[in-house]
Amino acid sequence: MSTRLSSYFLRTLREDPSDAEVASHRLLVRAGYIRRQAPGIFAWLPLGLRVKARIEAIIREEMAAAGAFEVHFPALLPKEPYEVTGRYEEYGPGMFRLSDRKDAGYVLAPTHEEVFTLLVKDLYSSYKDLPLTIFQIQDKYRDEARPRAGLLRGREFTMKDAYSFDSSDEGLDASYQAQRDAYERIFTRLGLEYVIVQADAGAMGGSKSEEFLHPTPVGEDTFVRSPGGYAANVEAFTTVAPEPRSFEHLTPAEVLDTPDTPTIQTLVDRANEAHPRPDGRAWTAADTLKNVVLALVHLDGRRELVVVGLPGDREVDMKRAEVAFAPAEVEPATEEDFAKHPGLVKGYIGPWSAAGPVLGEESSTGIRYLTDPRVVSGSGWITGANEHGRHVFGLVAGRDFTSDGTVEVAEVKAGDPAPDGSGPVELARGMEIGHVFQLGRKYADALGLKVLDENGKLVTVTMGSYGIGVTRILAIIAELNNDDKGLIWPKTVAPFDVHVIATGKEESIWTAAEDVVAQLEAAGLDVLFDDRPKVSPGVKFGDAELIGVPTIVIVGRGVADGVVELWDRATGERTSIPLDQVAAAIG
Amino acid sequence: MSTRLSSYFLRTLREDPSDAEVASHRLLVRAGYIRRQAPGIFAWLPLGLRVKARIEAIIREEMAAAGAFEVHFPALLPKEPYEVTGRYEEYGPGMFRLSDRKDAGYVLAPTHEEVFTLLVKDLYSSYKDLPLTIFQIQDKYRDEARPRAGLLRGREFTMKDAYSFDSSDEGLDASYQAQRDAYERIFTRLGLEYVIVQADAGAMGGSKSEEFLHPTPVGEDTFVRSPGGYAANVEAFTTVAPEPRSFEHLTPAEVLDTPDTPTIQTLVDRANEAHPRPDGRAWTAADTLKNVVLALVHLDGRRELVVVGLPGDREVDMKRAEVAFAPAEVEPATEEDFAKHPGLVKGYIGPWSAAGPVLGEESSTGIRYLTDPRVVSGSGWITGANEHGRHVFGLVAGRDFTSDGTVEVAEVKAGDPAPDGSGPVELARGMEIGHVFQLGRKYADALGLKVLDENGKLVTVTMGSYGIGVTRILAIIAELNNDDKGLIWPKTVAPFDVHVIATGKEESIWTAAEDVVAQLEAAGLDVLFDDRPKVSPGVKFGDAELIGVPTIVIVGRGVADGVVELWDRATGERTSIPLDQVAAAIG
Repeated sequence: MSTRLSSYFLRTLREDPSDAEVASHRLLVRAGYIRRQAPGIFAWLPLGLRVKARIEAIIREEMAAAGAFEVHFPALLPKEPYEVTGRYEEYGPGMFRLSDRKDAGYVLAPTHEEVFTLLVKDLYSSYKDLPLTIFQIQDKYRDEARPRAGLLRGREFTMKDAYSFDSSDEGLDASYQAQRDAYERIFTRLGLEYVIVQADAGAMGGSKSEEFLHPTPVGEDTFVRSPGGYAANVEAFTTVAPEPRSFEHLTPAEVLDTPDTPTIQTLVDRANEAHPRPDGRAWTAADTLKNVVLALVHLDGRRELVVVGLPGDREVDMKRAEVAFAPAEVEPATEEDFAKHPGLVKGYIGPWSAAGPVLGEESSTGIRYLTDPRVVSGSGWITGANEHGRHVFGLVAGRDFTSDGTVEVAEVKAGDPAPDGSGPVELARGMEIGHVFQLGRKYADALGLKVLDENGKLVTVTMGSYGIGVTRILAIIAELNNDDKGLIWPKTVAPFDVHVIATGKEESIWTAAEDVVAQLEAAGLDVLFDDRPKVSPGVKFGDAELIGVPTIVIVGRGVADGVVELWDRATGERTSIPLDQVAAAIG
Repeated sequence: MSTRLSSYFLRTLREDPSDAEVASHRLLVRAGYIRRQAPGIFAWLPLGLRVKARIEAIIREEMAAAGAFEVHFPALLPKEPYEVTGRYEEYGPGMFRLSDRKDAGYVLAPTHEEVFTLLVKDLYSSYKDLPLTIFQIQDKYRDEARPRAGLLRGREFTMKDAYSFDSSDEGLDASYQAQRDAYERIFTRLGLEYVIVQADAGAMGGSKSEEFLHPTPVGEDTFVRSPGGYAANVEAFTTVAPEPRSFEHLTPAEVLDTPDTPTIQTLVDRANEAHPRPDGRAWTAADTLKNVVLALVHLDGRRELVVVGLPGDREVDMKRAEVAFAPAEVEPATEEDFAKHPGLVKGYIGPWSAAGPVLGEESSTGIRYLTDPRVVSGSGWITGANEHGRHVFGLVAGRDFTSDGTVEVAEVKAGDPAPDGSGPVELARGMEIGHVFQLGRKYADALGLKVLDENGKLVTVTMGSYGIGVTRILAIIAELNNDDKGLIWPKTVAPFDVHVIATGKEESIWTAAEDVVAQLEAAGLDVLFDDRPKVSPGVKFGDAELIGVPTIVIVGRGVADGVVELWDRATGERTSIPLDQVAAAIG
């Protein structure tokens, strides 16, 4: 097959789109692959559709190899199943909602767990029908608060979502593994390096989940890994808590003046200067207990303040906080929040209880106090005294205060011990390219999906869900394969196999170019032929570099000597090849 | 390729779905092709997706042959372009509308004229860039008032919509013809008989349009055709009006008592009895002028009454009325409407003017009076006198009354003359399978799509739009190809090429069946293999008949004699074939 550029629907652009923050967005728009329709919503032009189709074909092959069957659901679905599982509420403003002319409620489905569950419930009734894995490749919509980076975080995207159904936990493990293996094959075929990390399963209500991350310094996700093989995204990381200690021989706490110490650093400096440590070592930020006020916005709109106590050498990681407090949204407390609670003395907040501060003015507030797992019984701290300019030294957890529970919101640091004992972790960044979940029985329970087991007894089905963002992966591949001239597609997903450029006015060149195109077509290659008669070689070369087909053939003056130039887009290398050996050289 | 039924995601159902009115709906659900999600919204199961993919492949091939390039737009689009062209209003409740978290308005696009226009405006600037035809195959949503007949009139459907762009009228003619030719090829390949009829272009704002109708007595569209080749759907049919006549020598009108004549038939009977025609011939319904009150519901919600005068032997055709009064919706007037206008004497309504009735009580009503094209100047009528029990005889148009305009709302009857003089028309019914429009410059004007012409002058682009309902066509093919046992797919779109059934317990039969499957696979055929071990031959045969793969191979007892049975699903014919010649017999 060949496509002639003179009549193709393609216009490359000289200017970067003004809203493009990342290379993939900039280049996919400039090279004529996609075109913006609204924030985070794009139209696919012919070149883009070609790449997308090739990625989809690879996914379909590997899904078939994994024994999964393809189905297709609409994006527009009735809201009721999402209400039954609670996700209608939980998704908050991230889900598009609408009503039909009869005021029945609908959603643009962000994922399809509910309706896949109902479909299987409709059609299946026995353990003999299982295992089953079904998938779709489908356009999804999510009302992201801040759509950005082009296709990397859009409001419309194409997703491959698969769902597995099993009658036993062992079955789920096997189905999960089959999809996980398929993902490994898919990313390998796509040339995408990946790390599989433990992930938080919270949002989907599952019991186990792993993310496939492509490691890259510009990734938006942070993950940790240990020398012993532990890997998790920071949201899923669990802190190794020290053993509780006896506090029998600890000295009593003492409230001391610490004027002008609203920050940890000023406090540590002041403490070392005015209240040196009895054992002579210097106080460090890790000796302080920082109490941070967070505001939780619950699904019903209720705003709740919580105080979180964590070692002073760590910040609150808002992504970890979001997971910890989901489905509530988390914000830093505002001046207004503080104004409503005069008991919270900013900069000098101490441990708290449901009844109010442990130290300082008594007040009944009902504000929950949660602590980092490191705040174990017997640990002593320098912390706020709930009085301006004063701190308490040697305040001991379990003796002087208790909390309403522990919470994982502290940032993870390089060197923190991996929870499985496999050594200190290092931090790295990556981009999510796939996500596999063991959902367990949450959806089947909520929607009543049961089958008869070997003994004729009804058992609830256990499920998995498995997602790959097709358009996101396309963008990531573009993000990883480009230079200052344009895109450089891997052969597996390139829109064409070869880009033939004819340059020059001589009839012989054009005849030769047609010959080359025919030769390549005969070899079964997909050819883009730049046959534009009045366009300069420079513009043609520039367009070829921008479009990024991996192999370019230049048919020009060399024709007089019976040769054409083979141009490797990735290396820039150009080689002379006899006219009649082009297909052999590329094939 | 082969697919084994024992593990395939397929369950056939014994019961018809309770809401299925038509065979395609009933059978596609029962045979496991589709599954209802909400009124008019379906999920596609593996078998259904296979047929859909084959239809789409044929469409894509013919679009490519017609020089059209594929793109893909999201279903969710910003409302602004639809506001600019007025369609946001005009679509009324038929379009799904929604808002994002920032309260920006969006639509689920029912068709994509606006954004295709803007895309070309974005990228193209010269007449040299044209002609251009681009298309997509995409899931669309329309909020149908009465979704019904399964996929035939759903609220979600897959559509191939193409749009052409030209700088001249001649160019548009050529682009239109190219799509029209492609449609003929597509329907021919799909085995769908079709008639091309003139259609009303009103809704799309176009200048010319044609529908491809599949002629069938159960079709929901009525069309007319003449011996001389005229064909139009009834909405587009234009009445041949008689020549105006002189009324110089006509006798004056006379109001006569016609008690108890609220209907045309009672009036004609009474007239022949009490007021015989001077020339001795009998009065017929065609001599009467029937005045019908219609209520127009305008887009802004305003309700307007109009009186429509038409020959008494014709009813108002509400579909023609809808086209005539679009974008207003048309309803019969209600008792409430009549109560508000006592001047409208039900059963005895006469001609009207903006100032009120021509005869009877004077009243200033502002109700428009529109007449059928046959009510020409000089034509005389028996019609209502706006008084209970009285009619006027010999009331002459142009002498005794005038109207505010003519309107095409009267039913078309067999024998009516075709407007092009090609003879009397006959009526037939059909199902719409495609629609081609010359949009002209409406969209380009509204959205500012201009290009530079040969002289460097900006000219507005002229456009066409071309639609095929992919899922609707699938349903029509199912509707045309079935019997009381199930579906009977044509080979071009069947989900599989061959359905192999193994029946019997002997090892030799199963070995032979595997051989046959391998043989067919090797011949490049797509095989569905019913390898279910514990299912009776009867159930297997029943499922095969329901699913409707055109060729069935039964591997059973004949294996002992070295033969299998070839079963033609359409004819029911069964033939014995030597085991080693199965592929040859089918291929």
